[in-house]
Amino acid sequence: MRQRHRAWADDFLRNNTNLVIPEPEKQKGHWRELFARDLPIHLEIGTGKGQFINGMAERHPDVNFIGIELAKSIIVMAGSKIKNSGRTNALLIHADASDLTELFAENEIASIYLNFSDPWPKKRHAKRRLTFHTFLQQYQHILQPGGEMTLKTDNQGLFEYSLVSFSSFGLELKDVFLDLHDANDPENVMTEYEEKFAAQGQPIYCCRAQFT
Amino acid sequence: MRQRHRAWADDFLRNNTNLVIPEPEKQKGHWRELFARDLPIHLEIGTGKGQFINGMAERHPDVNFIGIELAKSIIVMAGSKIKNSGRTNALLIHADASDLTELFAENEIASIYLNFSDPWPKKRHAKRRLTFHTFLQQYQHILQPGGEMTLKTDNQGLFEYSLVSFSSFGLELKDVFLDLHDANDPENVMTEYEEKFAAQGQPIYCCRAQFT
Repeated sequence: MRQRHRAWADDFLRNNTNLVIPEPEKQKGHWRELFARDLPIHLEIGTGKGQFINGMAERHPDVNFIGIELAKSIIVMAGSKIKNSGRTNALLIHADASDLTELFAENEIASIYLNFSDPWPKKRHAKRRLTFHTFLQQYQHILQPGGEMTLKTDNQGLFEYSLVSFSSFGLELKDVFLDLHDANDPENVMTEYEEKFAAQGQPIYCCRAQFT
Repeated sequence: MRQRHRAWADDFLRNNTNLVIPEPEKQKGHWRELFARDLPIHLEIGTGKGQFINGMAERHPDVNFIGIELAKSIIVMAGSKIKNSGRTNALLIHADASDLTELFAENEIASIYLNFSDPWPKKRHAKRRLTFHTFLQQYQHILQPGGEMTLKTDNQGLFEYSLVSFSSFGLELKDVFLDLHDANDPENVMTEYEEKFAAQGQPIYCCRAQFT
């Protein structure tokens, strides 16, 4: 991160503590109180520059969104997008998503989105994949009964692995798309990364699965 | 079918009743008795010209195989392959596979292969797809507890549909390949159809699922 952007990022975080929530673990169990309206909360893991969460928040005014992103230089761009839109149904967390149960209480979340997560292609790194069973346990804990998760990726290996991992964990597959953009789902909101890869003709894999 | 081939097919069936079993419903519950050795029985639905069943029977001498094929002109080609190989661990059924419970008793089969089944792409024909839940019920009935099924197809729509249908029925996905030949599985035995499509660079989808 360049010096100028870093200073701007620090300023942004300092001046927007109602949008990028500091000390998020203190909000555990109380996230609903931070939103203007009490609505189901959907969580995006790895929010990046925020095109997805911002587009979803626009399209779904009856949902409250929380986005988690570890990179400070990136999350401020997401924050900037949300701030400029004037939307009140999206918040951000600048944190590592490695233990979600520290950030959210049981049943606090209605739906989870995993967008273009790191595929960790080497077998010995399987446990770092965000669809490894230890992560699914966390998702199950913070999701309401019958809660859903949606995975989007351009990585074939991660997608194959995740379908098997979901199934083995007892999740029920509700939708599978092997070429999401070919399927032309009008509900699909693209991430920045997705937009770039789809433009190159790369198929985007998508799966919606439900904890039962 | 040309006249000459038809006459040859009729002759073949008449002269090879130990290989293409006539009145197969009479063997229900007694298939094991028709094989030289008492081994687990694997069933291929839609055997076509027999390259798969013949190759599998060669590769897996400790499995007995049964192939079902409706088209008389085609099943005789499969029969001819098996006969020429001299193998005793493969039998054929010239029949419609629309009700397998008329042909097989409960728990009689250890594994089922669906190779390049008709995709029936129109939504109103979904119930004709061989992975529709009514067919899964039949498979579950004739399969031993923990029995598996393996689906191979070049049809994206059928594959997407089948993954969801399996999951909804409670099958557990054990393996998913979105490009089987790229995965270079040395265990894979190709059907004639698969060989042709793979040579054209068409990805072959494959899924192994287990009844739980």
